[in-house]
Amino acid sequence: MLQPLNRHARRAGNPQTAVIGGSSWLSALIGSSLVWLLVAAVPAWGQEQPLRPNVIVIYADDLGWGDLGCYGHPTIRTPNLDRMAAEGLKLTSFYSAAEVCTPSRAALLTGRYPLRSGMCHSQRRVLFTDSPGGIPDSEVTLAEALAAAGYQTACVGKWHLGHFPQHLPIHHGFETYYGIPYSNDMDRIADRKLGRQAFFDPKVEYWNPPLMRGNTIVERPAEQHTLTKRYTEEAVTFLNQPHEKPYFLYFAHNMPHVPLFASDQFAGKSPRGLYGDVIEELDWSVGQILETLRTTGQAEKTLVVFSSDNGPWLIFDTHGGSAGPFRDGKGGTWEGGMRVPGIFWWPGQIPAGRLSQEIACTMDIYATAVALAGGTVPDDRVVDGVNLWPLLSGAGKSPREEMMYYRGTELFAARKGRYKAHYITQPSYGAGKPVKHDPPELYDLGVDPGEKFNIAAQHPEVLRELESAVERHKVGMVPGENQLAPSLPFRN
Amino acid sequence: MLQPLNRHARRAGNPQTAVIGGSSWLSALIGSSLVWLLVAAVPAWGQEQPLRPNVIVIYADDLGWGDLGCYGHPTIRTPNLDRMAAEGLKLTSFYSAAEVCTPSRAALLTGRYPLRSGMCHSQRRVLFTDSPGGIPDSEVTLAEALAAAGYQTACVGKWHLGHFPQHLPIHHGFETYYGIPYSNDMDRIADRKLGRQAFFDPKVEYWNPPLMRGNTIVERPAEQHTLTKRYTEEAVTFLNQPHEKPYFLYFAHNMPHVPLFASDQFAGKSPRGLYGDVIEELDWSVGQILETLRTTGQAEKTLVVFSSDNGPWLIFDTHGGSAGPFRDGKGGTWEGGMRVPGIFWWPGQIPAGRLSQEIACTMDIYATAVALAGGTVPDDRVVDGVNLWPLLSGAGKSPREEMMYYRGTELFAARKGRYKAHYITQPSYGAGKPVKHDPPELYDLGVDPGEKFNIAAQHPEVLRELESAVERHKVGMVPGENQLAPSLPFRN
Repeated sequence: MLQPLNRHARRAGNPQTAVIGGSSWLSALIGSSLVWLLVAAVPAWGQEQPLRPNVIVIYADDLGWGDLGCYGHPTIRTPNLDRMAAEGLKLTSFYSAAEVCTPSRAALLTGRYPLRSGMCHSQRRVLFTDSPGGIPDSEVTLAEALAAAGYQTACVGKWHLGHFPQHLPIHHGFETYYGIPYSNDMDRIADRKLGRQAFFDPKVEYWNPPLMRGNTIVERPAEQHTLTKRYTEEAVTFLNQPHEKPYFLYFAHNMPHVPLFASDQFAGKSPRGLYGDVIEELDWSVGQILETLRTTGQAEKTLVVFSSDNGPWLIFDTHGGSAGPFRDGKGGTWEGGMRVPGIFWWPGQIPAGRLSQEIACTMDIYATAVALAGGTVPDDRVVDGVNLWPLLSGAGKSPREEMMYYRGTELFAARKGRYKAHYITQPSYGAGKPVKHDPPELYDLGVDPGEKFNIAAQHPEVLRELESAVERHKVGMVPGENQLAPSLPFRN
Repeated sequence: MLQPLNRHARRAGNPQTAVIGGSSWLSALIGSSLVWLLVAAVPAWGQEQPLRPNVIVIYADDLGWGDLGCYGHPTIRTPNLDRMAAEGLKLTSFYSAAEVCTPSRAALLTGRYPLRSGMCHSQRRVLFTDSPGGIPDSEVTLAEALAAAGYQTACVGKWHLGHFPQHLPIHHGFETYYGIPYSNDMDRIADRKLGRQAFFDPKVEYWNPPLMRGNTIVERPAEQHTLTKRYTEEAVTFLNQPHEKPYFLYFAHNMPHVPLFASDQFAGKSPRGLYGDVIEELDWSVGQILETLRTTGQAEKTLVVFSSDNGPWLIFDTHGGSAGPFRDGKGGTWEGGMRVPGIFWWPGQIPAGRLSQEIACTMDIYATAVALAGGTVPDDRVVDGVNLWPLLSGAGKSPREEMMYYRGTELFAARKGRYKAHYITQPSYGAGKPVKHDPPELYDLGVDPGEKFNIAAQHPEVLRELESAVERHKVGMVPGENQLAPSLPFRN
């Protein structure tokens, strides 16, 4: 068996880490060069003894890389996330491990490429309301791994890893659950004639998703206008409870997946329109979480991660987000589909005001959190996530040098260091068919983050190196039994 | 005559200003809502008594909106500019007043749309080496206005407002000058057969631009590898001199205009390639300036502005920059052509850690600096710039609600508030001809900063309001005698 926590450790990469001086009280006072001395002096605790922090993962749905102020959006106001980034570590090469919802969430919670758990499918790309499947019992979710290490666990928000009882959070390591078990555009009951207009002028009664507590439906259809607000109240209530042991809170918003809904406090307020209202309410929610941690003295004991499950759903025009400078969006394997915001925050342990280009991904949250908890990563299977603590603590680099890009069950592209090869490309949505590339297309993501200039002809040696990385990856890849196959005839 | 400093003052706009909490020691400590109270308590000194700060304008050439870390670039490292933004005010709707070099610089230094000074031309878009013209004596440059108010003045870097003695900086209010008087790609002497390859593998000997001190050529061709470094040394030397009165330093880099050159310290270091090397050296230069101000006790007496003359020159592929989420680049009137970074820094006077979507432009630097200096804006002509002090100090809003977009001598587009109408569009470079739009194309820059969704049909009332704004603008527009007309037959 591979030793996933250490297997990348021997690799050296460029540091690509810059201090953004002045963006914290620390760096404002002492300047960037001194911060480096300080960073170098921070011991890599995670490698010596478990710190056993609380772990909170805040996960947005279809939020693009470019949708936050601190990632360069010109009209969406995200002061709380900007502050979180300024007080922590902002990653610019952070990835979701899949291009759509279900496999992305499976990867986050198992630390494994979703092909291993069978939680991806090339036609039926996510779980639908008629899907019988879900996350297999054989998987060890992050909740289960942390529970085994003595953690309290809670899940708030979107699940989308199966909605029959044996697939719901309660059956997979979470002590409590409150949320919609799949996407908020499922269970559509609006007149078909409305077509896409249902999304552009959304009304709650157009959809009939259930809001659940534990395994019980408590509201249907879920009142989506207050969803973000109520999720946040639920999370804050959990944080305010007395905790006898460290906890893991998985807080997965349904927003900004279409249909978009914001509460009265935010509706109509953002210059970016309804999409901006929704993001600004998410930002408010992040502020509520961090402020609760601060006021209850938990901030220095809690690792908080913010990310998104995939890129923006561009086919929804102004109701979809922005991938910033990256190409394409949700559903595809260009950077816009899988590169997402990645902000890590833990006052006192993660030095403030840093920005890094090192490669990391959502699967790494699994390995990092389990290591920090002093828990055990399963050793009877491949875990793809790596422990990011050296990068987070400032003591070293990300152990990750590679990223594989699957669309459904097929490997479309691979990144190693600054280079990315596309073996197959396909429009993220719509009628376009897959196109195989031989030689593959090759992009230098450092020089050309927008993937505009194919340099395959100039760099056959890089293509060979990437091919070797893919071959090594494939040797260890045993696809799990597919869990997304339809019970009913597949409707395209 | 119009009263330009006050004529927009009665207009109300949306504040669109967000505190990025935590990105300064102040906001990190007390949180965003309290900062607002503090901001409200800062008196608008500029309106009561002149503060007479030193004024430094750092101006990049062809740097795109999306080329800095703090504006969302994923691979260019700009820790000094990021810190400058975190310690000051970062504007996301800041504009150059023209789409190419010469008119942009004329606008900056006169506070007027370049059509008024005759410093724009629809075919011969900038001054070339064979151009006889330059900035007219009748214009009152910012250097002249500040000199009249008792300021010392210095110009370092690219001029591009005429290279005959009567047009050079010394003749237009600057006591000293050190720099190349036009673009670094002019005076090309490389073999024509090299074509564009001369830019992609640039050598100093391909071009023959003069480096001048005062009115004297001191080096030809200018050794461009060390240009940014030597400009910086010149500026730092100026800052380190004893100053008996406040000063105005206009520091206009030749970079990152192609051909790109970086010094040994930076060449080959940036993940973004040579373009990134050049930006990272510019960032280093900004750090040198601010650090000099800090260590010599001048920081609290000095307003520093960072911006660019127009958007990125996209036709140069990876040797051109990025407009981030905006459409098109240098040479055009889509947002990517004229929306540029705008960072204002003045410790103790400009509250730290703010981000604003308010509209402002390079012409406003003129009115703001003259007002802060206690000087006089010429009252015998239209000055388009407005005093931004209410916005900078945190006491109020930008007095600017409108922006006119000229391509050469023709008005192509207009913005008022969140809306922008395109009356004419044309590809920024290449063979495309102008296309008139009737009805005009209309975009909501709040909801749709990328100008993708034309909403003219849905909002005829907005088009009428923009048309009124354009009519008002045209009433006061008297074109100056054209200064860019060729002496030699125009070669396209």
